[in-house]
Amino acid sequence: MRSLIDIQDLSVAELDELFATAADIAEHPARYAEAAKGKKLATLFFEPSTRTRLSFEAAMLELGGSVIGFSDADSSSAVKGESVGDTARVISAYADIMAMRHPREGAALVAATRATVPVINAGDGGHAHPTQTLTDLFTILREHKRIEGLTVGFCGDLKYGRTVHSLISALSRYAGVKVVLISPAELSLPGYIKGGVLLEAGMDFSETTDLEAAIPALDVLYMTRIQRERFPDPDEYERLKDSYVLTPEKLVAAKPTLSILHPLPRVNEISVRVDADPRAKYFSQVENGKYVRMALILSLLASAADKTPLTAPGEEMPTMACHNPVCITRCEQELLPRFRVTNRELQIIRCVFCEKRAEERR
Amino acid sequence: MRSLIDIQDLSVAELDELFATAADIAEHPARYAEAAKGKKLATLFFEPSTRTRLSFEAAMLELGGSVIGFSDADSSSAVKGESVGDTARVISAYADIMAMRHPREGAALVAATRATVPVINAGDGGHAHPTQTLTDLFTILREHKRIEGLTVGFCGDLKYGRTVHSLISALSRYAGVKVVLISPAELSLPGYIKGGVLLEAGMDFSETTDLEAAIPALDVLYMTRIQRERFPDPDEYERLKDSYVLTPEKLVAAKPTLSILHPLPRVNEISVRVDADPRAKYFSQVENGKYVRMALILSLLASAADKTPLTAPGEEMPTMACHNPVCITRCEQELLPRFRVTNRELQIIRCVFCEKRAEERR
Amino acid sequence: MRSLIDIQDLSVAELDELFATAADIAEHPARYAEAAKGKKLATLFFEPSTRTRLSFEAAMLELGGSVIGFSDADSSSAVKGESVGDTARVISAYADIMAMRHPREGAALVAATRATVPVINAGDGGHAHPTQTLTDLFTILREHKRIEGLTVGFCGDLKYGRTVHSLISALSRYAGVKVVLISPAELSLPGYIKGGVLLEAGMDFSETTDLEAAIPALDVLYMTRIQRERFPDPDEYERLKDSYVLTPEKLVAAKPTLSILHPLPRVNEISVRVDADPRAKYFSQVENGKYVRMALILSLLASAADKTPLTAPGEEMPTMACHNPVCITRCEQELLPRFRVTNRELQIIRCVFCEKRAEERR
Repeated sequence: MRSLIDIQDLSVAELDELFATAADIAEHPARYAEAAKGKKLATLFFEPSTRTRLSFEAAMLELGGSVIGFSDADSSSAVKGESVGDTARVISAYADIMAMRHPREGAALVAATRATVPVINAGDGGHAHPTQTLTDLFTILREHKRIEGLTVGFCGDLKYGRTVHSLISALSRYAGVKVVLISPAELSLPGYIKGGVLLEAGMDFSETTDLEAAIPALDVLYMTRIQRERFPDPDEYERLKDSYVLTPEKLVAAKPTLSILHPLPRVNEISVRVDADPRAKYFSQVENGKYVRMALILSLLASAADKTPLTAPGEEMPTMACHNPVCITRCEQELLPRFRVTNRELQIIRCVFCEKRAEERR
Repeated sequence: MRSLIDIQDLSVAELDELFATAADIAEHPARYAEAAKGKKLATLFFEPSTRTRLSFEAAMLELGGSVIGFSDADSSSAVKGESVGDTARVISAYADIMAMRHPREGAALVAATRATVPVINAGDGGHAHPTQTLTDLFTILREHKRIEGLTVGFCGDLKYGRTVHSLISALSRYAGVKVVLISPAELSLPGYIKGGVLLEAGMDFSETTDLEAAIPALDVLYMTRIQRERFPDPDEYERLKDSYVLTPEKLVAAKPTLSILHPLPRVNEISVRVDADPRAKYFSQVENGKYVRMALILSLLASAADKTPLTAPGEEMPTMACHNPVCITRCEQELLPRFRVTNRELQIIRCVFCEKRAEERR
Repeated sequence: MRSLIDIQDLSVAELDELFATAADIAEHPARYAEAAKGKKLATLFFEPSTRTRLSFEAAMLELGGSVIGFSDADSSSAVKGESVGDTARVISAYADIMAMRHPREGAALVAATRATVPVINAGDGGHAHPTQTLTDLFTILREHKRIEGLTVGFCGDLKYGRTVHSLISALSRYAGVKVVLISPAELSLPGYIKGGVLLEAGMDFSETTDLEAAIPALDVLYMTRIQRERFPDPDEYERLKDSYVLTPEKLVAAKPTLSILHPLPRVNEISVRVDADPRAKYFSQVENGKYVRMALILSLLASAADKTPLTAPGEEMPTMACHNPVCITRCEQELLPRFRVTNRELQIIRCVFCEKRAEERR
C-alpha cells in the first residue's frame, strides 16, 4: 500500500506517470467518471483549508466516488484527545483512502503508519503539502510541455513560504532549470535551502529585489504573498509592498509565453487587472490541482489491496531528541521518536516525522 | 450562462415555466432521479443557514447530482482574506453550479460576475433571498392553482421582514392580488415598499392591527416572527405579542381553503396546535422549496455551456458613493462601485450591488 | 414506521435478525451496494461526535445512498431557536431517514413523534446511545458466535459510563451471562443498575478492584476510560490510574479467546502495545458498528412507507414533574411532559423522554 506524505516519496518516473494520467483525465474526463465508483475518500481536516479540501472532494466525486469527513478540529474526535494514529485506524474502517490536514508536523506520516488504507498528506503544519507541489509542477508541464530548462522566478515571501521551498526542491530534480529569487532582503530564501537544495543540485540561480527587472527573463513567475507580520519594521513593509504587487504595467516586457502561478488565496499581491491576461494561469492551476489529485487518488487506490501500514523510516536513537514544539512526536500517545542521518559528512540527523534537525538529548 | 441573484431577474413567463417544472418534479420525482447525474453543486455558506443549505443539497441529490461546500465562514478561505470574486472563480473549477449565502449585500452578484458556472443567491445579507420567494409563490400556486386575484395577508414584523418585502414585490406582478397588512404600528410596512411597490403597481391593500378580524377574508396568511428586540419599549412588546400568535381559536372564522405559510424557523408565533390543521401549509412549503430549487438548478444548468460570467449592470459614476456599511463594495478587492438610475423623475440612483440609494460623493 | 430511540425498543428476536443482516453485509458487501440507492440519510449532530457521524455516513454510502446534515449546533438552525420537533419535521422533507445526536435527554424521542421518516437516536445527552450497544453486542456475537453463557468483564468508570449501563442492560436479556465489575470503589456500578438490572434479571455477577486478577476468567473485557475529573481526590486518581490501564503484561494469563472491546476514543487506558494482540477487537468493533448501522438503516427504511410519526408513550400526569435540567421537556415549545409507572410496587414513575424519576409537583 502506498501513501503520499512528501513529494520526495515519488520518483521522477512516478511523477511523469502521474502527470500523464492527470493530463489524460483533463482531456477525457468522461472516461474516468466511474473510475472510483463505490470508493470513499475521507477528508480529515484538523484545521480548515477550504480550497484544498474542496479540490480533493471534487476530485473524488469526478471519479464517481464519494466523500465523508470533517472540516475543522472542533467537529472531530480530536477534542476528546484521540491520537492521530487511532483516528487513522478508525477511519480505515470507513473509507478507502484519506486526505489529512493537521497542524502538527509529521501527523500524516504517523497516520500512514497506522492506517490500513492509503493516506495523502494535505498539509502537516509547516512541513509538507505535496499535492500543492504536484499541482504546481503539473501546471508548469501543461503550459510549457516540459519542465527541463525553464527559468522559474519566485517572488514574495521566500523565507517562510512552504510552497516555494517544496517547489524549488522538486524542480531541482529536473535538468537545466534556472531559478530567479525575487524578494526583499528580509524575506529571502533561507540558507539551508540555498545550500541544501540549489547548491547541492548545482542549479543555476540568481537573487534580486527587483520584480520588474527580473520578469523579462522568466518562463514561469510564481507569486506569493508578503505578510505585514513578517516585517519587524512596519514602515519597511509599507515602503516595499507595492514593489511586489504584480500589475499589468510590470508585465509589459514579459515573454508572451510566461505563465503566472500563485498557490492562492491571493490577497492583493496580484492585481485583479492581471486576471484577464492570458498569461495568468493561477485559476488554471486550481483546475490542474483537481486533475492531479484525481490521478493521485487512482494511483493510490490501485495499491490499496495490500493493507499493511507504512513502516516509519529511520530508527530509534536514544541519545537524540526532537525539539520542534509542533512535531507530532510531542503529543502522540506512546509514539517513540525516530531519527535518520541525512548528511553523514556534516553529521546532520533529522527527526523522521517533522524532518527538523535533532539534537543530543541533555 | 444564467444566474439567479434577485427574484426580478426572472420574468413572469420564466416563473411560470419554473413552477411548471417544479410541479412536474413533485408529481414524478423518479423521472428526474438522474437529471443532474455527474454534476456538482457547491453550497458556499459564509454564514450558517441549515434549512436553506439542506434544501439545496437535498434538491441536488434528488436530481442524481452531488454536493461539496462549507457551512460557515470559519471553515472557508474567507478567514484568509480571499475575495468573494476569487472564491467564485476557484469554485468554478470544482462545481457545475453554486449556491452562495453571504453576510455582505451584493456578494452573490459579485460572485456571478467572476464565476464561470451559474450562481444562485441563497441570501446576501438583508438584500435578497430569491429562492425563498420562489418557494412562497410556488406554494401559493400549488395550493390555489393560481396567484391572480388572491387575498394575501401578511402578519407580524412587516418592517424588517425581507421575505415579506420580496413576496409583496413578486405578487405585484400578478393581476388582482389584494394585500392585507397585519402588524403592530411599530412594525408596519415601510413607506418605500408601500409607495414603490403597492401604490406603483396599483395593488388593492389595507392595513390593520387586528389579526383575528383580518383572517376571514384571507386566501393566504403569511406569518412571520415578531422579535422582542424590535420594540423600543419592552412593555409594549409584552402587551402586543399574543395578538400576533396564531392559534386554533383565531382560525375559527377562517376560510376552509385558507393556506397558512411561514418562512420558518418558527419560534412561537404559530402554536404547535395549529400544525394538525389541514390549512397549515408551512411544512408543505418546505417540501415545495426543495422542488422549486430542483427546477431552478435544472434550468440554470441548461444554460451552463456558455461560460461567460455575468456583466455587472449599471455604470461607474465617479460622483456617486454607496454608504451601505454591509455592501460588498466596501471590502471586495479592486471592485469599482457601479450605479443605476432607478427613478429618473425622482432622481433616485442605486448601487447595483446592494440596491441601496447612492449618495453624492463628498 | 419504526424508529430506534432506545435499545429496549428492539426485542431479542429483532436483535437476532438485525445481527444476521449485519453479518451478511460484512460477508457480502457487494450485494448491498445499491440497497439504499436514491435514499438520503440526514445526520443531525447538535453536538460533535465524529466517529458516530462518520460511521452512519459510511454505512449509508456503502448502501448506495447519500447523506446530508450538519456536524455541530453552530451550523444548524438551533441557534435561531427552532424546536427539535420542527427540525425533525422539516428534515423529513429532505431525507428518508435521520440520525440525531443532541445534548438534551429525550430529544430523539421528541423528533420521532414529529418526523414522518424513521429517526435513529445517535445519542441524547447521557440518556441512550442504542447503536453503540448494537455495535458492542454484534461484536461479541461475531467473535464468540453466541452471547449466552459468556463471562463479560467491565473495567474502568462503571459509575458514569453510559455505554456500560446500556450494554449490561442489553446482556441481561441473554441467558447465562456472567458479569465481572472491575473498578475503583469510587467508580463502581450505581445501585439502581445493580438492583434494577443485575439482581432483577438474576444475573450472576461479582465485583473487584483488581483488573489483573479478574482477566483470566473473562471471555470479553470491555474497557472504558477513567477520567481524572471523576475523583474528588487527585492523589487517589494518581495512585489508582495505572491499575486500570490495560497492557500486554496484564494479559499474560488471559484466555486465548478473550475479546477486548472499547467504545473509543481511547486516551491511554489501553496501551498502544496491546493493539497488535489478536485479542484486541476494538478496531474490529468500529467496523462492526458500520455493518450493524447498515442493517439498521435497511430495516428502518423498510418500514418507512407508513409516514405516521411515533406516538409518545406514557400519559400526562398533572401532579408529576420532571426535574432533570437537561430533559428535552424543559425547553421544547408546547411539549407537555408525559410519564409512566415503571415499578408499581415501588411506585416509581419516570419521565418518558429522559427516563429520569419524576417527582410530585410542588
